[in-house]
Amino acid sequence: MQLTDIPTPALVLDELRMQRNIDRMQTRLTHLGVAFRPHLKTAKSMAVARRMLGPDVGPATVSTLREAEAFFLAGVRDILYAVGIAPRKLERVAALRASGCRLTVILDHVDTARAVSAFCATRGVSIPVLLEIDTDGHRSGISPESSTLLDVAAALTDGAELRGVMTHAGSSYACRSASELVACAERERAGTVRAAERLRDAGHAVPVVSVGSTPTASLAERLEGVTEVRAGVYVFQDLVMAGLGVCAIDDIAISVLATVIGHRADTGWLITDAGWMALSRDRGTASQASDQGYGVVCDVEGRVIDGLQMSGANQEHGIISRADGEPMAWAQHPVGSQLRILPNHACATAAQHGEYVVVRGSQDVTARWERFNGW
Amino acid sequence: MQLTDIPTPALVLDELRMQRNIDRMQTRLTHLGVAFRPHLKTAKSMAVARRMLGPDVGPATVSTLREAEAFFLAGVRDILYAVGIAPRKLERVAALRASGCRLTVILDHVDTARAVSAFCATRGVSIPVLLEIDTDGHRSGISPESSTLLDVAAALTDGAELRGVMTHAGSSYACRSASELVACAERERAGTVRAAERLRDAGHAVPVVSVGSTPTASLAERLEGVTEVRAGVYVFQDLVMAGLGVCAIDDIAISVLATVIGHRADTGWLITDAGWMALSRDRGTASQASDQGYGVVCDVEGRVIDGLQMSGANQEHGIISRADGEPMAWAQHPVGSQLRILPNHACATAAQHGEYVVVRGSQDVTARWERFNGW
Repeated sequence: MQLTDIPTPALVLDELRMQRNIDRMQTRLTHLGVAFRPHLKTAKSMAVARRMLGPDVGPATVSTLREAEAFFLAGVRDILYAVGIAPRKLERVAALRASGCRLTVILDHVDTARAVSAFCATRGVSIPVLLEIDTDGHRSGISPESSTLLDVAAALTDGAELRGVMTHAGSSYACRSASELVACAERERAGTVRAAERLRDAGHAVPVVSVGSTPTASLAERLEGVTEVRAGVYVFQDLVMAGLGVCAIDDIAISVLATVIGHRADTGWLITDAGWMALSRDRGTASQASDQGYGVVCDVEGRVIDGLQMSGANQEHGIISRADGEPMAWAQHPVGSQLRILPNHACATAAQHGEYVVVRGSQDVTARWERFNGW
Repeated sequence: MQLTDIPTPALVLDELRMQRNIDRMQTRLTHLGVAFRPHLKTAKSMAVARRMLGPDVGPATVSTLREAEAFFLAGVRDILYAVGIAPRKLERVAALRASGCRLTVILDHVDTARAVSAFCATRGVSIPVLLEIDTDGHRSGISPESSTLLDVAAALTDGAELRGVMTHAGSSYACRSASELVACAERERAGTVRAAERLRDAGHAVPVVSVGSTPTASLAERLEGVTEVRAGVYVFQDLVMAGLGVCAIDDIAISVLATVIGHRADTGWLITDAGWMALSRDRGTASQASDQGYGVVCDVEGRVIDGLQMSGANQEHGIISRADGEPMAWAQHPVGSQLRILPNHACATAAQHGEYVVVRGSQDVTARWERFNGW
């Protein structure tokens, strides 16, 4: 089967590029002497997860309890649920742990710590907890120097077991240069290690110091005091990562296969059947030096077509135009021909699809891998 | 069961508001003396479609062949697939028609017309076709006055049967006032009717003149010459429609149920477990007079909380802040409490979910309705 046999729009995954991305990150973190806990929220596919986690099915990070449940059923045993736990979700956490899943939760509020402690006391169960640390004001987390840090730790009692600290330097996505990224990674490291030290000074054990984002994991120069790194987007990479200099355009492993369904001679537009439902509404490159619209356009073999950009999107219509002012080469893109669009944000685009159509650097389809969504 | 028993994030549908929206549009179009062909791309749910199509399961519009297949299996017989047909999709079109589905396709290019004609000739089948007309430069379509119009019509031969013309005034979403919307609706009507007249003058029958978008269907003052209207978003409405003045905030029938998972005293943020994966990345109100961020915040009963806005979104984190500079009422939103977020764009937000949790104006869950995605 070839890509021309696949109904469009469809999500294409180039396994060769993906494996190169996996190998590169694994090699880098091995060299830095730190454990890796890949984030599975981008892929949401066991076939991809197996390649990320290796033959021993090592530790993983997830963003939803559905991911935890699905990946546990598929053989992943050590899982960090890296979104602040809501008290009502503790039943599902306990059910997973009772089944043998080594699931850890995170929190950053005294009331949540009390809720987890009360749940553990009532049920006679234990739940490992990491405290979420904030090193860049991005979203959640406790400031490393705040008094809240020790208050939250002290509120963990009974089976609510403080295992360590974690942070996600989400502001790394907004960095403008490699040196800014290196500095961001160092702030992420230093702040998280500092929080661990304060907790240790207060008598807590804190064996886990967990940091990560694809940009900081890719640029960090030192990770002293860190015990594990998390990253997810690296597996596919995307235009936001390319814009940050974290990868090359040719490293991007997923693309959306589209069919040309119209020509607008007056506006210079190719119209395709892949709109924002297939690409997502993510415009993450809009604030970068190179705004890539809804994506960079490739031929069906995955080679970038210079000057073409997906400049607009309706629900099921993509608009492709020349970003360089040159005339459109209509004859090269007849109605019915296919294109592939590299996405701004791998997590958002992949989530619009139910499967990966797998290729290995050509048009030949070698596999189709299921993916899932939901909570 | 109550909303507090539902794992978050979840998509809540208030059936009373939905029914009011359905009744209002149906009454309006009946009054204007025109047939209605609701668009099912927003809902993608048979339970919702039944209420939109009425007891006789009237004609429908879809945006994907998967919708056509699913709704046909569920009893919808007369379907317009309102995205320009790709030649490779004709096999699925023919299979549906062979099963008894009265499926019509659209196109706007001579080459597509030739491809449909050749397919029909080879297979000995017939496929009804509407020509897509452009009245506002929004995306696809043939200009009503262009010579292409007659060329494309002439290229339909054998079983490729010209049934009429259709347009979608997508630019209505960018209008700034009721009078602009009325003018946009009139351009949509006049351009489509003009295209039909030119085709009739050339000897074609053109029984179908189809127009529509929720804004123009809601504001059109006259529809002479139009045989049917299409609209989809009206069933749920959303903040973009409210910003256009097409509905009131209290007409919006879907919302995303979220749980507060953190407080950021320093930034004034409530953190929830509903990020862009639950709301979508759609920022359709960003270009309107009132930028609603990622959504308007309601209490769990669906009442708007004045001054609160979902100002930011990560994949599984929502950031809620005061849009009016007042201090956050932390005690009213403890960790573990729930909120409901009204979305910018109903189509995009609904697509992030696998079901509707149905309520009727209160917290009591009365049903759960499946929805689907994909192509």
